[in-house]
Amino acid sequence: MKTRTHLLASLTLIVLLAIALSASAQRLEINIPDIPGYTTLKCDFHMHTVFSDGSVWPTVRVDEAWRDGLDVIAISDHVEYQPHKGDIPTNHKRPYEIALGKARECGILLVRAAEITRDTPPGHYNALFLTDIDALDTAGKSSLTGDAAKEEEFLMQLRAAKAQNAFVFWNHPDWKARNGQRVWFDIHTKIFDEGLVNGIEAVNGRTFHVDSLKWANERNLTLFGNSDIHAPMNPRTLDDDAVHRPVTLVFAYEKTLESVRKAIDAGRTAIWFENKLIGRSEYLEAILQASLKVAPPHMTYRNTAYVSVQNISDITYELVKTSGTGPATATLPARATTIVRIGVNNEGKATLGYKVTNLITGPDACLTIEDVSPW
Amino acid sequence: MKTRTHLLASLTLIVLLAIALSASAQRLEINIPDIPGYTTLKCDFHMHTVFSDGSVWPTVRVDEAWRDGLDVIAISDHVEYQPHKGDIPTNHKRPYEIALGKARECGILLVRAAEITRDTPPGHYNALFLTDIDALDTAGKSSLTGDAAKEEEFLMQLRAAKAQNAFVFWNHPDWKARNGQRVWFDIHTKIFDEGLVNGIEAVNGRTFHVDSLKWANERNLTLFGNSDIHAPMNPRTLDDDAVHRPVTLVFAYEKTLESVRKAIDAGRTAIWFENKLIGRSEYLEAILQASLKVAPPHMTYRNTAYVSVQNISDITYELVKTSGTGPATATLPARATTIVRIGVNNEGKATLGYKVTNLITGPDACLTIEDVSPW
Amino acid sequence: MKTRTHLLASLTLIVLLAIALSASAQRLEINIPDIPGYTTLKCDFHMHTVFSDGSVWPTVRVDEAWRDGLDVIAISDHVEYQPHKGDIPTNHKRPYEIALGKARECGILLVRAAEITRDTPPGHYNALFLTDIDALDTAGKSSLTGDAAKEEEFLMQLRAAKAQNAFVFWNHPDWKARNGQRVWFDIHTKIFDEGLVNGIEAVNGRTFHVDSLKWANERNLTLFGNSDIHAPMNPRTLDDDAVHRPVTLVFAYEKTLESVRKAIDAGRTAIWFENKLIGRSEYLEAILQASLKVAPPHMTYRNTAYVSVQNISDITYELVKTSGTGPATATLPARATTIVRIGVNNEGKATLGYKVTNLITGPDACLTIEDVSPW
Amino acid sequence: MKTRTHLLASLTLIVLLAIALSASAQRLEINIPDIPGYTTLKCDFHMHTVFSDGSVWPTVRVDEAWRDGLDVIAISDHVEYQPHKGDIPTNHKRPYEIALGKARECGILLVRAAEITRDTPPGHYNALFLTDIDALDTAGKSSLTGDAAKEEEFLMQLRAAKAQNAFVFWNHPDWKARNGQRVWFDIHTKIFDEGLVNGIEAVNGRTFHVDSLKWANERNLTLFGNSDIHAPMNPRTLDDDAVHRPVTLVFAYEKTLESVRKAIDAGRTAIWFENKLIGRSEYLEAILQASLKVAPPHMTYRNTAYVSVQNISDITYELVKTSGTGPATATLPARATTIVRIGVNNEGKATLGYKVTNLITGPDACLTIEDVSPW
Repeated sequence: MKTRTHLLASLTLIVLLAIALSASAQRLEINIPDIPGYTTLKCDFHMHTVFSDGSVWPTVRVDEAWRDGLDVIAISDHVEYQPHKGDIPTNHKRPYEIALGKARECGILLVRAAEITRDTPPGHYNALFLTDIDALDTAGKSSLTGDAAKEEEFLMQLRAAKAQNAFVFWNHPDWKARNGQRVWFDIHTKIFDEGLVNGIEAVNGRTFHVDSLKWANERNLTLFGNSDIHAPMNPRTLDDDAVHRPVTLVFAYEKTLESVRKAIDAGRTAIWFENKLIGRSEYLEAILQASLKVAPPHMTYRNTAYVSVQNISDITYELVKTSGTGPATATLPARATTIVRIGVNNEGKATLGYKVTNLITGPDACLTIEDVSPW
Repeated sequence: MKTRTHLLASLTLIVLLAIALSASAQRLEINIPDIPGYTTLKCDFHMHTVFSDGSVWPTVRVDEAWRDGLDVIAISDHVEYQPHKGDIPTNHKRPYEIALGKARECGILLVRAAEITRDTPPGHYNALFLTDIDALDTAGKSSLTGDAAKEEEFLMQLRAAKAQNAFVFWNHPDWKARNGQRVWFDIHTKIFDEGLVNGIEAVNGRTFHVDSLKWANERNLTLFGNSDIHAPMNPRTLDDDAVHRPVTLVFAYEKTLESVRKAIDAGRTAIWFENKLIGRSEYLEAILQASLKVAPPHMTYRNTAYVSVQNISDITYELVKTSGTGPATATLPARATTIVRIGVNNEGKATLGYKVTNLITGPDACLTIEDVSPW
Repeated sequence: MKTRTHLLASLTLIVLLAIALSASAQRLEINIPDIPGYTTLKCDFHMHTVFSDGSVWPTVRVDEAWRDGLDVIAISDHVEYQPHKGDIPTNHKRPYEIALGKARECGILLVRAAEITRDTPPGHYNALFLTDIDALDTAGKSSLTGDAAKEEEFLMQLRAAKAQNAFVFWNHPDWKARNGQRVWFDIHTKIFDEGLVNGIEAVNGRTFHVDSLKWANERNLTLFGNSDIHAPMNPRTLDDDAVHRPVTLVFAYEKTLESVRKAIDAGRTAIWFENKLIGRSEYLEAILQASLKVAPPHMTYRNTAYVSVQNISDITYELVKTSGTGPATATLPARATTIVRIGVNNEGKATLGYKVTNLITGPDACLTIEDVSPW
Repeated sequence: MKTRTHLLASLTLIVLLAIALSASAQRLEINIPDIPGYTTLKCDFHMHTVFSDGSVWPTVRVDEAWRDGLDVIAISDHVEYQPHKGDIPTNHKRPYEIALGKARECGILLVRAAEITRDTPPGHYNALFLTDIDALDTAGKSSLTGDAAKEEEFLMQLRAAKAQNAFVFWNHPDWKARNGQRVWFDIHTKIFDEGLVNGIEAVNGRTFHVDSLKWANERNLTLFGNSDIHAPMNPRTLDDDAVHRPVTLVFAYEKTLESVRKAIDAGRTAIWFENKLIGRSEYLEAILQASLKVAPPHMTYRNTAYVSVQNISDITYELVKTSGTGPATATLPARATTIVRIGVNNEGKATLGYKVTNLITGPDACLTIEDVSPW
């Protein structure tokens, strides 16, 4: 036994070997600007580890998040689905506990969370800002049987979450219904009406569920876009701006968990998905304006002004003219400057109207900006 | 309880969600050609999972290996060092068992292995082709005390490995001695003399221990270059050929575990490290020759021949003239064709002599090729 | 004057300064394999220099072609359109003369060519294998007036080309008709019927004119896909396989101008455009087969075989099942290996039928392969 | 003749075809920040076109400059060396005239310039802000003979430049002396003493002439780093920050030619070369400070503060500790955020001292920053 103690002491040095090929000493910030009154936090509230059906240790989720420019994450291992439990006995507290030290070192805000995991319907739900995940493990607690027991245990979970003042959103509403089957059932009406669920994950991984936008509008739900990553996450690069994890943009007063919670409660979020922004017009327009630096014309010739437009964001904006004297279409690439030729009147003034086809505000709607005077 | 059964049945569908952002549907082959008589297998015999101090589930190591062009891997979790055992009770069998199904699907050969982990000296040792890893867990089995117990238990481990007909190599011999301290101690003389250890890891992660080449030559040890990866491995790309995991090249009769073992026993290996090949001249020269396709001169003008040299390998060869009429230096980039101007005699013939500075054959030696007639 | 002579002598050294930031010491081969009986030459028969309306010196076209993996090029400056002639007096011979030395050094075959440049209709025509470009400069040689003179001079040009045994193809047939206007006029019927024009450029720059395939089929015209590059050409990279110049693939007996001519006369060409191959089924199927290396199943489990398919080409093949037991769709990425799961019968055999949606054989047709036994 | 007129009119549409594969619709800004009091203009004052020994039309130089983030360029074709004059009769005015319209459209400031091209010694000299390039063509104007004539004509050139109020700098001082031969001759003493030359090109293409820094310090010369590009310039990418054209950074009051001239007269320049900045300490330190955003510690634990340092510039800063409690070395990658662990006292304060090894202030000197309080 002494031998073993001695051995362990000496083995503490082994961690130094972990300066591995995967070590990421640098963080690639996400260039989506702050908007007036708010800092734009980049968040992913849905991810897994070996403590449910993921394949990485909880600290890996922090490393990935820091490296890829996130500010806030929630590790949301399944409460019910524990396929590794033969090797890793179920302990709902551990993912958060294990990840917390690394999160503090990296300056990542870590939200205590879990995924309520039910067959469809009702489906899966993420509960954020939990204080006691074990309280959500309600399997076998119903005195009923069959479907009635299942429903009761599910509602017990949501109510246990509510009792902790958690924020709950519906995950990937369509994930078993992607071939056109029904998505919304009575149970959904019930839980939304009862106020047990207040958000909806319109984007999950590589899938965008458009109807979620409609429901979010109708019921004033907070929008989420999350990775739901199970495997290791490949590092984000700038090679292809459409390849990145979905990110929930949270418009917060400051970078604290309290501010994140307030913003989520108030519905101040949007989604960055592929090369799209998805959310309310007011936020998308604010991001657009903060992204573009339009210089006065550097040349005007025969009622055509040559204007440099610098896009400092990681989003390539796609514009289609709706009115005014600008070009019929314009692409403003991410992190680049474009020269745009704009018709001007004899005073050198222009008025522009565009829809921005990749800023999505509803099931069939995108951001429209009208009567813009660019300088 | 019924509820739970029902639940689990329905949850089997959840794995479908794991088609995640990290999914790698394609494999980037490593372009290091076969050599006459042998297929060149790309191998990594040293890596970790959550079952010791790594941070990924065992199947991840198979996914990474397949994606990055490997043929053979060994998961070599520490026998003694088990920092996760509070969450994952020690079970030496599991990494291999868990990874095996995925390996079969991918066509990756999986070697059952473990890392014997001792303070330095004697250091760490990988045992390959084990049949019973538990037999190596000798902690507390010595009847002696103090240092004598430690040494006895260590030798018990190596002998247990030998009893299983395992192949053992010394890992990163210099890893605690990188500031110039002593590396080789009496215990090393003992274990090599006794035939308990027959290989040496000259390259580990990002470190190349040059003296290992000398010892390999003197004692006829098999050379290894391995990743010793603990964190998730970032995908290999072609952006920078110097950034890839170290690979042990095994020159085997065919792609079977039996052939791998024979090749290792016979010392038929070399190391691919950064943009270097490290090993015996005969193997490096064979790879060089198989990599280059030299066309006859497409133009000859005033005793200068213009020759296209295509390098089909992933290694950029760096040549410095030692004799003959070629250019003073030549760089032959990986996966590219280069035009080389070569002096020729009146019959249009040339003779070339070069050293290839990135093909390393010894502590201060590189491959030299003389009296080459390129066409 | 002596001073000047002295000066010029010393200035010959200045060219050494030209080892510039743009110097490309290496060539990226195009991985489109040879097919049975033929070598697959990569050709671009349409490009411009400062000698008409291009913006580079003729040698630049050779450098670009070598760097980007081409075997054969034609510089085809406009005979009539000479916007730089105030600075560079018209001299149709010079582009070829200037480029020839560099082409020989690089092993690039250079075809003497010019572009006949008429308003639409009739449009533009490239004449390859010319011996005397000046003979095509027929402006003002008609004794007629108005439109009749224009037509006569145009026909004089084509006949002058034919008299030199040139090969003439119709460039970008739709380039002024891209908004749906008429493309084919009586003059086209006339020149094709008379045998003055024997090829058609179905792909020009970034545009693919689908109707050209129909006309090529009906009239047995040779297909061309060319860059028509005027500005400097950015280097090809592997970052995005859809971004490369269009290439005319010529299936030749050997890499000589004579073989190129024979192949063009016989219609043995296809087009590589974005991630498409365009041409006759027989050639596209031969390329597909030469691109794919299918290994026998490395695992078979419950009537499912796991098969590695290596695609050695630069084309990502997109397959959709038409019959058999393979997956419904399959993407085989360029330069990568994919594992495909294929249903097998109890003898372990499979039969596959697929259409390859990016191998285009006609206006609405793609390559179909049926009853394939993959092993 | 009428036919031809008609033809030309219709041919004006051909330019539309020039939307070629090389078209660059976007500009990649160079992220080197402004410094207090000045805007940091990115300039290249040395480049060639087909009008001397370059291989591109003058407008190409503007396109390249705009695309790659430059603000100011000078086309500096050789006055004496005119190897293309058989095809392009010498006309010193034309490069500037041809490029000017494109420069105005792009908002690029174009400096009228030429390269005085003499054997070594005295070598080559760029004259900027010329009004009459022809006046520099003094060949044959001396009444002397032999070497005396050569020297007199060279001095006539420099004096003609001075008479036009041009700014003259010595190009690549070592370019024929790179094997260690003498660089500085009596003629150099003479022209610098006479005030005919006031700048020195310490960086030319891929070469950095360190002694130029010493001479610049001794004689108060303005530093230049230029491309001297002859071939087409490959587009700048972010793949490798060391691969870009050398840039002369000009610290100007505003982006006008007048401000550029004032800054050059006052020596307010620095050089961006590979991953180095070269110039006076005051400018390099100002750029460093404007590049780094240091947040207050997000965690402090046992006298160690964890600090996020965001580097918004395109320069990776390499630091080596000289004093204080920071890490021994630190690399702050371009466009990335790094977490640095810094020792702090019990009040949480740190003091740092570093040399920045890639900010070069003289032959064997680099920027040193001491007694920095990072927060």
